[in-house]
Amino acid sequence: MAELIGNLLVAQSGGPTCAINASVAGVITEAGKHECIEEIYGGLNGILGILNEELIDLNDEKSKSIEGLRHTPAAALGTCRYKINFQKKPEQAAKDMDRLFEVFAAHNIRYFFYAGGNDSQDTSHKIHEEAVKRGYDLRVIGVPKTIDNDLPHTDYCPGYGSVIKYNAATVMEIGLDVGSMATDEGSCCIVEVMGRSAGWIAAGTALAKRGNPAAAPHIILLPEIRYNVDSILAKVKETVANHGFCLMVVGEGVKNEKGEQIGADKTRLDAFGHPVLAGAAEIIKDHIQEKLNTKTRSVLLGYAQRSAAHYASLTDTTNAFACGEAAVRAAVLEGLSGYMVKIIRGNNPDGSVKWSTGVQPLADIANVEHVIPRDWITEDGLMVNEKFIEYVRPLVEGEVKVPTDGGLPKYVVLDKNRIEKKLQSRA
Amino acid sequence: MAELIGNLLVAQSGGPTCAINASVAGVITEAGKHECIEEIYGGLNGILGILNEELIDLNDEKSKSIEGLRHTPAAALGTCRYKINFQKKPEQAAKDMDRLFEVFAAHNIRYFFYAGGNDSQDTSHKIHEEAVKRGYDLRVIGVPKTIDNDLPHTDYCPGYGSVIKYNAATVMEIGLDVGSMATDEGSCCIVEVMGRSAGWIAAGTALAKRGNPAAAPHIILLPEIRYNVDSILAKVKETVANHGFCLMVVGEGVKNEKGEQIGADKTRLDAFGHPVLAGAAEIIKDHIQEKLNTKTRSVLLGYAQRSAAHYASLTDTTNAFACGEAAVRAAVLEGLSGYMVKIIRGNNPDGSVKWSTGVQPLADIANVEHVIPRDWITEDGLMVNEKFIEYVRPLVEGEVKVPTDGGLPKYVVLDKNRIEKKLQSRA
Repeated sequence: MAELIGNLLVAQSGGPTCAINASVAGVITEAGKHECIEEIYGGLNGILGILNEELIDLNDEKSKSIEGLRHTPAAALGTCRYKINFQKKPEQAAKDMDRLFEVFAAHNIRYFFYAGGNDSQDTSHKIHEEAVKRGYDLRVIGVPKTIDNDLPHTDYCPGYGSVIKYNAATVMEIGLDVGSMATDEGSCCIVEVMGRSAGWIAAGTALAKRGNPAAAPHIILLPEIRYNVDSILAKVKETVANHGFCLMVVGEGVKNEKGEQIGADKTRLDAFGHPVLAGAAEIIKDHIQEKLNTKTRSVLLGYAQRSAAHYASLTDTTNAFACGEAAVRAAVLEGLSGYMVKIIRGNNPDGSVKWSTGVQPLADIANVEHVIPRDWITEDGLMVNEKFIEYVRPLVEGEVKVPTDGGLPKYVVLDKNRIEKKLQSRA
Repeated sequence: MAELIGNLLVAQSGGPTCAINASVAGVITEAGKHECIEEIYGGLNGILGILNEELIDLNDEKSKSIEGLRHTPAAALGTCRYKINFQKKPEQAAKDMDRLFEVFAAHNIRYFFYAGGNDSQDTSHKIHEEAVKRGYDLRVIGVPKTIDNDLPHTDYCPGYGSVIKYNAATVMEIGLDVGSMATDEGSCCIVEVMGRSAGWIAAGTALAKRGNPAAAPHIILLPEIRYNVDSILAKVKETVANHGFCLMVVGEGVKNEKGEQIGADKTRLDAFGHPVLAGAAEIIKDHIQEKLNTKTRSVLLGYAQRSAAHYASLTDTTNAFACGEAAVRAAVLEGLSGYMVKIIRGNNPDGSVKWSTGVQPLADIANVEHVIPRDWITEDGLMVNEKFIEYVRPLVEGEVKVPTDGGLPKYVVLDKNRIEKKLQSRA
C-alpha cells in the first residue's frame, strides 16, 4: 500500500447526538499521530458547508477544546440534512459532486471522514465511488452516528447508548413521580421519544424497570408493531388497576393496524421526504382520557433526549471516540476507502463486555434499516423481553464527568478559524 | 415552654419535586435527636392517607434509606392533591377535621410536619387553628416545597433550585443542538416548562445564556406578562435572522393580551378547581410555522423536569434537608406551632451566599402568591434581566452525587411498614 500524503477533512451530518463530537475528537487525536496527514480540516455544516468551501483549521483549536468535545453534545462542526440526491435530483447531484471534488482538489483533501446515520453513510459511499471513477486518490470512511440505532452490521450506533441512558433515567424518575401521586382514581403518563421507523429508543427505556413488573415503564409502543388501539387501552386499564398508575413510552413512529403512523401529519415532509412526525402521545392520551376517563399527562422529550450530555453514557462516548480513531487507522494504516467503522461486542475473561471496532463496506450499509428482532419483543407487542435487555444493558454503563461552571455544564465551543477560500463561490 | 412528649407525623402533599424527600430526611434525622419525640411516623399520600389512618413507621426504615432520600425524587411517602375545603365543602371539611384529630389522638401525634406548596401550607394553617380551638396539644410546622417558587417570605422554595438547574442545562443542550443544525432556512424550538401563574421556572432557564445574547434561550414567555402574539413573532423572526435559530422557553400559563391563558383548556379542572393547562408551546409553534414559515419543533418537559434528581442542585437539596431539620427544632426547642420554615439568604465574609432558615406565621403564607417582580423582566417582557440572574444564580450551584447501578440512578424505595390501625375505617 502506497502512503497517501495530504490533508484530512472531517464533517458531521444529520441529527446531532451526545457522542458525535467524541467521534470527531477521536479522528483529530488519531490523525495527529500520522505524518502522512498534513492538515486537519473540519467541514462546517456537513456536505453543505463543504460545497460552500467553508472549512476550519482543527489544528488551530486548543487541545483542551478537542478533549472537551468528548463530553459536548450537538454537532460542534455544525451539521446539515442536505443530501446529494442522484435519484430525485440527478442534475443537481452531478453538479454537487463536481463542486465537491473541486473543493477536495483545491485543498488537497485525501482523507474524508463523515459521521452520520443512514443517509450520511449513503453520501460517503457515493463520494467513495465517485473518487474511484474520477481517479482522485481519496480515502473515505464513514463513522457511525445515530441515536436511532438503525444502522446494520455495527453492534450499536454511537449516540444510542447515551440517549437510552438519559431516557431510561427520565422514565425511572417520572415513574417514581407519577407513582407517588397514585391515589384511587389512578393516572397515566405518556412519554414520547424519538424513533421514526425503529423502536430502539423507546425499547431502551425498559432498562428503567430493572426487572420489576410494577415499575415504569409498563407499556412500550414500538414502530415495528401494528397496534390495535383497544388492546392498548385494555392494557392501560389493567395496569392502572394493578399499580394505581400507568407509564407508557411511545416511539414517535408507532403505527395503527393499517400500518399508518399514529402521529403522522402527511402534509409536511422533511428534506429527505420523510413525513414530519408529532403527536402520537397526544393522540393516545386523548383516547385514554375519553375512553377510560383516566387523568393522563404527556412528556415530549424531543431534542432534549439526543442532546442530554449531562447524563451521557461513558461506554457510548468511549466507543464513539474509538470509532473516530479507527476510521483514521483504517484509512492510513490499511489504506481502506468505502468502508464504515463498526462496533464489535466481545467478552473479557471475567464475562464483562469487551468492545472493539471493525470495518464494513459502505455498500452493505446504505439504505439498509436495522429494526428490533421480533423475538426480542413480547408476544403482545407491548414490552421488550430479556433478550433485548441483555443486548442493551452494557450500553448505558458508566457516567461521563461533565465539568460544571456555576452549577451548569461546561461545554466546548470551537474557535472555528476559517481556511482561506481558493475557489469562486458556488453557482 | 413545657416539653411536649409524643409522636411525630410527617407527610408530603401536592406535586412532587427532587427535593421534597430531602426535607423528610431532615425531619427524621433531627427528630432522632430529641427524646421528647417517641415515634416517627409517616403519613402515606398526605392528608388523604392520614384520614385513612395509613401511617408507616419511619424508625423502622434502614438508615441508608433515610440517607438515600436526600437524592431520591418524587414523594417517597406518597402525596395527594386532596384539600380540606372549608369554603366549598364545609360539611366534608368539618368531618375531615374530626377524623384527622381522631387519628392524631389515637396515635398520640403531637408534632405534625407537612411539606408542600401554597395549598398545603393552607391545610397546615387550618390544622394548627383547629388544634388550638380543640385544645389539642399539637405543634404544626409547614415545610416549604414547590418547584413553582411562588410561596412568599421564603428566599426561594426547595425544589425550585433543582428544577431550574435541570431545565437550564436542558435548554443549553437543546440550544447547542438546534444551533448546530442552523442552516440558511433557520429553525425554531419551543421548550414548554411548568408554571401556572408564576414564571419562575421559565425565567430560570435564562441561566443557560451565561450572559451571551447569541446563546439560548433567546425568548422567555412568562405568565406574569400579557403577550401580543405578533410581537412574539417579530422577535422570533429577528432572532432567526441574527442567529440562524431561535430557542423560546414558554411557561405553561402564558397569557394573551386579554389575559387568557394561551394553553388553557377551560373544559377541564383539577382537584383545586384550576384549569388543566396543556399546549401553549403547540399553539405558538403553529403560529410560527404558519406565519413565518419557519420549521419549529417543541419539547414538553412535563413531569421530567420536577423529577430529574439525576441533575439536582446540591444547594437546593441541602437547603431542603435544612428546612426539615429546622421544622423539628422550631417545634421542639421553640415550642412553635402555626409556622412555616423559610429560607434566608445572607452573605459569607468572602461574598458567597450564606443560607440559613427562619420561620414565618402560616397566616402570612396561605393563598399569597409570589410572582416575579416586574423590574426583573425586560421592558418588552421577553427576557429577564441581571437582577433576576443575580437572584437565581446561587440556587443551582453544586451537583448531587446520585449513586448508580448498572449506569442508572439508584433511588430509594421505603419499606413502608404500616402502623396497626386503631380506628374503624373512615365513613
